[in-house]
Amino acid sequence: MYYSEGETYTVRVDPEKVFHTTRGYVNLRDLVGAEPGSVIETNVGERFIVSRASFIDKLASLRRFTQVIYPKDLGYILLSTGVGPGSRVGEAGTGTGFLTATLAYYVRPDGKVYTYEVRRDFYEKALENFKALGLLPFIVAKNKDIKEGFDEQELDAVVLDLPDPWLVADKAYAALAHGGTLVVFVPTVPQVERSLHALRRAGFRRLEVIELMMRRYKTEPAELRPETIGVQHTGYIIQGQKL
Amino acid sequence: MYYSEGETYTVRVDPEKVFHTTRGYVNLRDLVGAEPGSVIETNVGERFIVSRASFIDKLASLRRFTQVIYPKDLGYILLSTGVGPGSRVGEAGTGTGFLTATLAYYVRPDGKVYTYEVRRDFYEKALENFKALGLLPFIVAKNKDIKEGFDEQELDAVVLDLPDPWLVADKAYAALAHGGTLVVFVPTVPQVERSLHALRRAGFRRLEVIELMMRRYKTEPAELRPETIGVQHTGYIIQGQKL
Amino acid sequence: MYYSEGETYTVRVDPEKVFHTTRGYVNLRDLVGAEPGSVIETNVGERFIVSRASFIDKLASLRRFTQVIYPKDLGYILLSTGVGPGSRVGEAGTGTGFLTATLAYYVRPDGKVYTYEVRRDFYEKALENFKALGLLPFIVAKNKDIKEGFDEQELDAVVLDLPDPWLVADKAYAALAHGGTLVVFVPTVPQVERSLHALRRAGFRRLEVIELMMRRYKTEPAELRPETIGVQHTGYIIQGQKL
Amino acid sequence: MYYSEGETYTVRVDPEKVFHTTRGYVNLRDLVGAEPGSVIETNVGERFIVSRASFIDKLASLRRFTQVIYPKDLGYILLSTGVGPGSRVGEAGTGTGFLTATLAYYVRPDGKVYTYEVRRDFYEKALENFKALGLLPFIVAKNKDIKEGFDEQELDAVVLDLPDPWLVADKAYAALAHGGTLVVFVPTVPQVERSLHALRRAGFRRLEVIELMMRRYKTEPAELRPETIGVQHTGYIIQGQKL
Repeated sequence: MYYSEGETYTVRVDPEKVFHTTRGYVNLRDLVGAEPGSVIETNVGERFIVSRASFIDKLASLRRFTQVIYPKDLGYILLSTGVGPGSRVGEAGTGTGFLTATLAYYVRPDGKVYTYEVRRDFYEKALENFKALGLLPFIVAKNKDIKEGFDEQELDAVVLDLPDPWLVADKAYAALAHGGTLVVFVPTVPQVERSLHALRRAGFRRLEVIELMMRRYKTEPAELRPETIGVQHTGYIIQGQKL
Repeated sequence: MYYSEGETYTVRVDPEKVFHTTRGYVNLRDLVGAEPGSVIETNVGERFIVSRASFIDKLASLRRFTQVIYPKDLGYILLSTGVGPGSRVGEAGTGTGFLTATLAYYVRPDGKVYTYEVRRDFYEKALENFKALGLLPFIVAKNKDIKEGFDEQELDAVVLDLPDPWLVADKAYAALAHGGTLVVFVPTVPQVERSLHALRRAGFRRLEVIELMMRRYKTEPAELRPETIGVQHTGYIIQGQKL
Repeated sequence: MYYSEGETYTVRVDPEKVFHTTRGYVNLRDLVGAEPGSVIETNVGERFIVSRASFIDKLASLRRFTQVIYPKDLGYILLSTGVGPGSRVGEAGTGTGFLTATLAYYVRPDGKVYTYEVRRDFYEKALENFKALGLLPFIVAKNKDIKEGFDEQELDAVVLDLPDPWLVADKAYAALAHGGTLVVFVPTVPQVERSLHALRRAGFRRLEVIELMMRRYKTEPAELRPETIGVQHTGYIIQGQKL
Repeated sequence: MYYSEGETYTVRVDPEKVFHTTRGYVNLRDLVGAEPGSVIETNVGERFIVSRASFIDKLASLRRFTQVIYPKDLGYILLSTGVGPGSRVGEAGTGTGFLTATLAYYVRPDGKVYTYEVRRDFYEKALENFKALGLLPFIVAKNKDIKEGFDEQELDAVVLDLPDPWLVADKAYAALAHGGTLVVFVPTVPQVERSLHALRRAGFRRLEVIELMMRRYKTEPAELRPETIGVQHTGYIIQGQKL
């Protein structure tokens, strides 16, 4: 993995391959065993600094085929559910696997994420992503319709990233341990309303609906100001506890 | 630990003690060994449901003596630095210990948080908080002025929650591993400006400044709307990478 | 009308009355003919600067008996409808009369605001407010149920500040001139959904839904930062045009 | 002026000209005397509805050569200063003239806007814009450096949309009537800090700094949600009163 100033690439080091940048290419075998901080040159002599990629850089480098959840929302979901090392978490649907991978990264080394995806093509591509991230040992991925329920019991948390989460609120309730938290992530307002109805009906308590708005600032101190254009909406995070 | 609908208490189960609520008191020895989901009665016959507290509930129940960082900001800091199981993290200042405890919770079981606090009284109260949360094994707390630098090397991340973080930007740089991330959390705009100057000077790259705004909604579907009054500012999160 | 530093009072100069502040009282007859910028003393010798009140200060000094619309929303409604000097505007319901008064202030001297209020007590108190502000000549206030429709035709704009605006969308359509704009202000999300349905059904085009979030900053430059706590939601502004 | 559904054009009716759309062209002489609501056909038979343009549509159709202020900010400035019919307002710099035109529109028919612009090319293009909008009678435009001060006295409000407003804070103070309000609009944080210093030094009181964030929602009720991408920052509005 390496970076240049203002121009950063995250690569998996496959010694058989060549990697092309806008400033020439590098043979990835030259990166094998390279020390973080060392410098590598492209075929046209441009110099890049080699570094280890952070977890977020790795996530961001994955091929996406569904809408993915943003770090601000992922972080809040982690913190507010208390999902951490050792937790057992249910999830549906898998999609690109960003959420699954993040949960898996944080339940290491003793926890497990059970993730359900009804579409075979998504399920298979997500498996590749988990392998690429080295997180497969912490994930049980299933190509199965969540509407039939979770196979697991006594889960610490369940996270639903589905178009119609209200259909499985009681399945989630059944799979959770007492005190466990259900998280529902949806982009539209009508989905929030239907989810709230379903969560109440299923018996969830301490309901919460929040949204997080993030603004990125220009980092030149003399010009400090929020960026003019940005992402002003990702989705709503709904939570309920089984009590 | 137990909850009532709309009224929730987080308690440490000390069998010697009595706990008073607005609906009578309970003898905490009755909670010893209570199953989650069981019901306990106060002396006036009000019924509470017993449940395990989540990590955030436990954090929220700690006595605070300094301004604390909010879950939304804690979650983003975790995700964006990739601090997780096994990470080694430096932190200053300890303060109430919310940030330390959160980092410690997530670096379990093999990671470590090295936290510095110059004030003896804060240091001692924070130690009590870490004990109460059972997180002491993952924390090395020091009653020391961070302006003298970190004793550690090759840290994965450093988080500064200080009034004058710009004074220690180069100490943080020295303590970080290559590819490691510095996070600075400050409430005011002039602090952002001074921090950005210091981070650049110290050699940090890929600078980022963000703020997160969170709105909580009423959860009655027929009245769905953001709460009228709320926290509209906590602080700015500044990051830089050692590359 | 006068002000002190950090402590400001807006008063109607009634020469018969005495006005009490936290720093003593003044005889209002002393304010008759006082030059802006002159100084007046209370009975205990505290000095206040006399000044003319701005329109917003006058509005803010009115007695409120219903939820009122905020300046940020009022300003956007004005600008986006183009309501200005000479405009003819319909409004329901009158409520405290903040919105009516603002519209009246801006349609002067040749325009008119036709406002409908079904509750007699609100209607009467609003009339007093209009008199106090000197805006009665520009307002036709009616104690009438808007569900029976507007008596006017060819209005430039109609503004609805009602709990159930969807019931009168077609009445508003009938009262508007071609090209005229309907504005609906509602606090909750379900109201937005029902209003959008009704506006479409009534024939409105170029629909728009927006919300404005305002943050107030501390004004000490060395401590520049948004206030921690603030109003984070007032309502949604929905618009449609008759085309 | 006319509109189509989803596709709207704002045109000045010049009977000599032809206007091209993505759906063919129309001869503008056909629009002379056309009733609002009537239909006009392009040369290829596409039908457009004719309507009067709103003030905002007219503003938006002007050629812009500088950064312009948004309706949300314009509206707040109007309301919070109380600038309305009959007000006398000073302004610098003119730029494209959006702010000048808006102020002029609202001070009609008896008020006046005195606007200063140091660049000859901006001044001349702005004059054309004022003519196109029919607002020239309410504007006194000057091609003059505001650092030499305002020629006017006893103004109700002064609005500064300059890169370095702090240089003329005392000129603004001198030109204002007692009780009058200075408004400063700036995009960056360091400009806010310098302006606050200058306003205090110049003697302004009741200082206020705010920012307005606007989110536009999708208007399909079944998909109600804020637009994903949007303008998340325009500028900061600083105010002070001469007391």
